[in-house]
Amino acid sequence: MNEQRLNRVRRLMEEQGLEQIVVSAAASVYYLTGLWVSPMERMLALYITRKDCALYANELFGLEARPGLELILHGDSDDPTAQLARRLLPGKLGVDKFWPSKFLISLLEARGDIVPVQGSDPVDQARMYKDAQEIEAIRHASQVNDMVMEQAVLALKEGVQEQEIAALAEELYRRNGGDRGEGLIVSFGANCADPHHGPSDAVIAPGDSVVLDFFTPIQRYWCDMTRTVFFRQADQEQRRVYQAVLEANLAAEALLRPGVPMSQVDQAARQMIEQAGYGPYFTHRLGHGCGLECHEPPDNSAASQAVAQPGMVFSVEPGVYLPGRFGVRIEDLVLVTEDGCEVLNKLPKDLQIIE
Amino acid sequence: MNEQRLNRVRRLMEEQGLEQIVVSAAASVYYLTGLWVSPMERMLALYITRKDCALYANELFGLEARPGLELILHGDSDDPTAQLARRLLPGKLGVDKFWPSKFLISLLEARGDIVPVQGSDPVDQARMYKDAQEIEAIRHASQVNDMVMEQAVLALKEGVQEQEIAALAEELYRRNGGDRGEGLIVSFGANCADPHHGPSDAVIAPGDSVVLDFFTPIQRYWCDMTRTVFFRQADQEQRRVYQAVLEANLAAEALLRPGVPMSQVDQAARQMIEQAGYGPYFTHRLGHGCGLECHEPPDNSAASQAVAQPGMVFSVEPGVYLPGRFGVRIEDLVLVTEDGCEVLNKLPKDLQIIE
Repeated sequence: MNEQRLNRVRRLMEEQGLEQIVVSAAASVYYLTGLWVSPMERMLALYITRKDCALYANELFGLEARPGLELILHGDSDDPTAQLARRLLPGKLGVDKFWPSKFLISLLEARGDIVPVQGSDPVDQARMYKDAQEIEAIRHASQVNDMVMEQAVLALKEGVQEQEIAALAEELYRRNGGDRGEGLIVSFGANCADPHHGPSDAVIAPGDSVVLDFFTPIQRYWCDMTRTVFFRQADQEQRRVYQAVLEANLAAEALLRPGVPMSQVDQAARQMIEQAGYGPYFTHRLGHGCGLECHEPPDNSAASQAVAQPGMVFSVEPGVYLPGRFGVRIEDLVLVTEDGCEVLNKLPKDLQIIE
Repeated sequence: MNEQRLNRVRRLMEEQGLEQIVVSAAASVYYLTGLWVSPMERMLALYITRKDCALYANELFGLEARPGLELILHGDSDDPTAQLARRLLPGKLGVDKFWPSKFLISLLEARGDIVPVQGSDPVDQARMYKDAQEIEAIRHASQVNDMVMEQAVLALKEGVQEQEIAALAEELYRRNGGDRGEGLIVSFGANCADPHHGPSDAVIAPGDSVVLDFFTPIQRYWCDMTRTVFFRQADQEQRRVYQAVLEANLAAEALLRPGVPMSQVDQAARQMIEQAGYGPYFTHRLGHGCGLECHEPPDNSAASQAVAQPGMVFSVEPGVYLPGRFGVRIEDLVLVTEDGCEVLNKLPKDLQIIE
């Protein structure tokens, strides 16, 4: 049990008028207890009140009690919500956003005096500010990612397919303590115009842009970065777009410090791309928080209500996508520090043309 | 929209006294609409009443209306449950088991006259009886799986690692229309004693049992099979265990026909293993339904309430696991027919020792 994190969550519960919450997201339960469980169809519920902290879990998860954590096990033939129903205080119950409805419905059937309300915010808020241990983990994951990216760029040569580059990156993650990479983005040429293109058997060709968007959890914490290079040659427009995206990335990172609204960071990047005349082709938000999940708060977009604060980690990933032609995206993970930000990905971003 | 399947679901709703249900599982929505959506954190809700059928979906999913299906889109800045709340009938609402609680809570806040109840059963029941189109898909997937398994067995040779065999199988799936294989089980020797062992860098050795449990979706429908072979030699006990597991597999398949309770099928297999003296080492159920999801109803276990009926597809996978030594599992997918069952995996099951 991480008492410091639990206390932070309890303070936020108090601020939000929540006397009891059910936490169910694997990442949130891990954040507080150090136990990682993928419950699938079975019940996992960390019940938190001002005084209590109890983990309701299926015995098949093979968990063991930890100091400060009450562990309440059930079997496959038990009704897993009955135990929890007995424990609940009457009134408002904060419920984690992705808890399967089947459990909530059982609880409501057992306890007519419970009023379910949205209850993820206290843990989500706490998780937004990474502590020293988390920062170390993300820094390490980003170092691995830099290395994997460097190797992937070196592997770009005549005849190579998108999926071969993806397989190479997955293999490198595996060898470096990563959970298996999944869904990496490797795109050549016109495929780059789809920001979420899945690696195919497309073969690299001279003049292709090459977008490599690599992300994977390494010892639970995610890295996430993108580099774009060109194969053999880059024409004038490719160079212009690359320059605009690079300036957008750099402008956002230069602006970042505690107190700056995330919406302004998005705007600073967007402005650079608009000035270059490619505004309509920057079709997504600037970035997303990253930690125990690849996408988590804070949102880094024009609509974001968040303000940069020390300990926040998120992506800065402007992009321009020209349908049928090419695309460019440059993404770093950044950590907001006391007086600015630390760019966690160190791999150079200058225009690179693979000979 | 598949009207035949929808009608079946409506009949089941009527039988269960449900006037309205919300279906959210990707596989269930696909089953009825032909649209496959992975909604992640966004809302997907197929609302079904006796007369209505409307899909509430985020515009980012890029869906298009289909005959017989009303499509109601929302954007990221809309409240996705508000539209649905307006449409609901007062009273009982059947809710799909894994619908995120955040949506249900919003609905309940908007409509105090709604009583949520468990609502997955009508679609889960319908999906249990595969129609001709589904059977064709599963048959095809199982043919691919036979081929992949055959190639994997051929690749077993001096120096090979578990993860190399897994990578080969994944590559073969990819080339044969499969979604990417994930989490395949390849285990050598003592690793086989863990039924869910993940492929490692373990190297094959003479006398090893080799358990290959391969499963992946191919054009949406899953295949799932296991073969166990021995490398270079098999001792007396390995042969005895193999024979017992094979007889268990064959006994279950021989018994299967419409009207036979699944619990009896499990028992028939278990008996063979008990008779050979390995009962305590057959530590899991006999199998699980398989279709749009790898694990779905019917349950094939001692506790199952299901009775075999034509159109059901499930696995028959007895196993024996001797900790620290070796393990054996033999698994086929089977289809219950009018007068027996069709074993969908055709690869031989006789004891095989790789020279």
